[in-house]
Amino acid sequence: MTYEQITYAVADGVLTITLDRPDRLNAFTRQMADELVDAFDRADADDDVRAVVVTGAGRGFCAGADLAGGGATFDYADGPAHRDEGGRVALRIFESVKPVIAAFNGPAVGIGVTMMLPADVRLASTTARFGFVFARRGIVLEAASSWFLPRIVGISRAMEWAATGRVFGADEALAAGLVRSVHEPEELLPAAYTLAREIADNTSPVSVALTRQMLWRMLGADHPMAAHRLDSRAIQSRGESEDAREGVTAFLQKRQAHFPGRVSADMPDFYPWWPDRPFSPLDGD
Amino acid sequence: MTYEQITYAVADGVLTITLDRPDRLNAFTRQMADELVDAFDRADADDDVRAVVVTGAGRGFCAGADLAGGGATFDYADGPAHRDEGGRVALRIFESVKPVIAAFNGPAVGIGVTMMLPADVRLASTTARFGFVFARRGIVLEAASSWFLPRIVGISRAMEWAATGRVFGADEALAAGLVRSVHEPEELLPAAYTLAREIADNTSPVSVALTRQMLWRMLGADHPMAAHRLDSRAIQSRGESEDAREGVTAFLQKRQAHFPGRVSADMPDFYPWWPDRPFSPLDGD
Amino acid sequence: MTYEQITYAVADGVLTITLDRPDRLNAFTRQMADELVDAFDRADADDDVRAVVVTGAGRGFCAGADLAGGGATFDYADGPAHRDEGGRVALRIFESVKPVIAAFNGPAVGIGVTMMLPADVRLASTTARFGFVFARRGIVLEAASSWFLPRIVGISRAMEWAATGRVFGADEALAAGLVRSVHEPEELLPAAYTLAREIADNTSPVSVALTRQMLWRMLGADHPMAAHRLDSRAIQSRGESEDAREGVTAFLQKRQAHFPGRVSADMPDFYPWWPDRPFSPLDGD
Repeated sequence: MTYEQITYAVADGVLTITLDRPDRLNAFTRQMADELVDAFDRADADDDVRAVVVTGAGRGFCAGADLAGGGATFDYADGPAHRDEGGRVALRIFESVKPVIAAFNGPAVGIGVTMMLPADVRLASTTARFGFVFARRGIVLEAASSWFLPRIVGISRAMEWAATGRVFGADEALAAGLVRSVHEPEELLPAAYTLAREIADNTSPVSVALTRQMLWRMLGADHPMAAHRLDSRAIQSRGESEDAREGVTAFLQKRQAHFPGRVSADMPDFYPWWPDRPFSPLDGD
Repeated sequence: MTYEQITYAVADGVLTITLDRPDRLNAFTRQMADELVDAFDRADADDDVRAVVVTGAGRGFCAGADLAGGGATFDYADGPAHRDEGGRVALRIFESVKPVIAAFNGPAVGIGVTMMLPADVRLASTTARFGFVFARRGIVLEAASSWFLPRIVGISRAMEWAATGRVFGADEALAAGLVRSVHEPEELLPAAYTLAREIADNTSPVSVALTRQMLWRMLGADHPMAAHRLDSRAIQSRGESEDAREGVTAFLQKRQAHFPGRVSADMPDFYPWWPDRPFSPLDGD
Repeated sequence: MTYEQITYAVADGVLTITLDRPDRLNAFTRQMADELVDAFDRADADDDVRAVVVTGAGRGFCAGADLAGGGATFDYADGPAHRDEGGRVALRIFESVKPVIAAFNGPAVGIGVTMMLPADVRLASTTARFGFVFARRGIVLEAASSWFLPRIVGISRAMEWAATGRVFGADEALAAGLVRSVHEPEELLPAAYTLAREIADNTSPVSVALTRQMLWRMLGADHPMAAHRLDSRAIQSRGESEDAREGVTAFLQKRQAHFPGRVSADMPDFYPWWPDRPFSPLDGD
């Protein structure tokens, strides 16, 4: 797939995905959704990608859904099985085996922020602004954000932001835990890359891939026994790997570890361990 | 129903429910529970109510269960199917389709605080005090607060408060996220009304009603796919509504939106989407 | 069981468990796991234990798994049913009916910190350091920490710590909520004991035991109705107890309560209310 609305650039183990419609403040479209899903597929399959940074071209991150369609923008004639485009992207990021860092370089509104809730870490420029503005447009939260948002900022903050539709700045986002740190504009990407490097330079790719899915999947588990069963298998599988031998030996020798395991080839045989959850709009919970 | 232990007053789109037994610091009774449940039923059915503020008359919010019964206060002779009164209120607030703002004007102890955990936003006066004092009275957490409290303040803080039974001030409540802000006594209700107005003046009532249930219900869902299925339906339904047309058009025209949709008539046909959960004391988890 | 790698000391209602391999920075072994599980069994059965404080001998809390085995440390030849030792300890603490306070007197790395996530309250000395270093050793999170950690510090912080494997200080732990407070080294244990005393001196042992299990178990429940069913039974059972009579009477008489109920004899007949979850490594979620 050739990308028109995003760019995809790998350098030194870190993939940068840039939302790239700067003349439209990188407004979200169905094509952008397709390109993002493809880009995360590509990243997961590419052993040269150890971490993913997502940012926006120009002065915005993503202004939300492209409203070029005017009042009919959200009027889909898809029949009964309409599927939310933002949710396709969010669920794809949820399933990523590479760590995902969102660098909010400017306004991130509506889908512009909700699709980044399944990122692992969010950083903001002082110029970033956020808004869960759906109720001001007559619609509702999407991109599965009713699941993600309360787990990140708590149900009370989530309700306040969603019920008011307020647009707010980086400080309010930081205080609520929506972003992990706020940076001067020119220091935003360097901070994101520093974090990406800290992962890429020190850890086993297979360990990180497994860990990402363990943490996100266990967020919905009803009992710690589910985790105990899972990590008993994972510890046994990883413990006998070359990565573990190298990791412990390097630590004891006080040197940098060089992990041979590759995500493309060395994930344990029990991965993925979860049952399929095909999309069905009729099956609510 | 005529209310004797609460007052119910709607003004300019905002309902104020006032716990009204000031000579007893608004201590909680079975009658108060009945009146509160009725008041929330009424609020949900009344399109003139866009948000609900709950506060207390006099210098207290709610001193907890009325202990006029002395040592036998909690000795119910109800047979095996006893149903906790505080839980009836808490679950009714959980099911509300109007946003609920608790304004703690003074001490809120025991059921006085637990019944307000399903409110969306909690504000406190500097004179407020809180206590999950149950273990000091020989009883246990109620009002389904073992579910709500850890989701609001975290399991560690919840356990500390519940295991010590400590009474603490507004500052400790703020630091832990039990309340969202602390105000001088005379500024408490104005702050609550400012927030209520921010909702009432800017957002679609139907969007807010749906959003409230989406967020609270998804707090218990095991996977974001549940949210994706749900919001795919919700976005399709809301996207073709007059509210969405008006919301987007008003935004593009940089004017205030006027949403025609009413909660009493225009909730989507898939609402409510959840299965019934009748009370049964024998069916624990 | 005689303990060799921990010490067990009860004084004035508070049990102190000390990890006691100071020459190895209290590194974790299978024997230590067995002793810890036994110690928590003993504590639950002993009515003289009202709260448990866990700390480390010497300058460390627990340096993680003992790496004396070198590169083969995690290479288990246990067959398909390997069971993570850290998880055995963590699940045992999860099931405790006595409140557990972890006092991190120094470095707590790997299993040294993950096994303490099911403690109720964590306090740290200014000399404490923490690290979820698993991905740096080529392995993964264990001790069911993929379930506990995101519920304590949030999914974003959990992913950042697990993906980088970074070792960090008490301040970062405090800011993220991993510990509740940081103390000068000589003030750490006094602070832990002050909290333990606040529980022991004021509350009903049976109420605290029930409360602990209500809060931790409801953390995985999908709906507040589960809590309502449970606390309806618990309130009825506790409300007719001698403890409730004494607790309310003492409060009304403004005196200290003296609760007759004992955990060993007076837990309600519906306890435990949960189904068994036997360990099975094949049954992931």
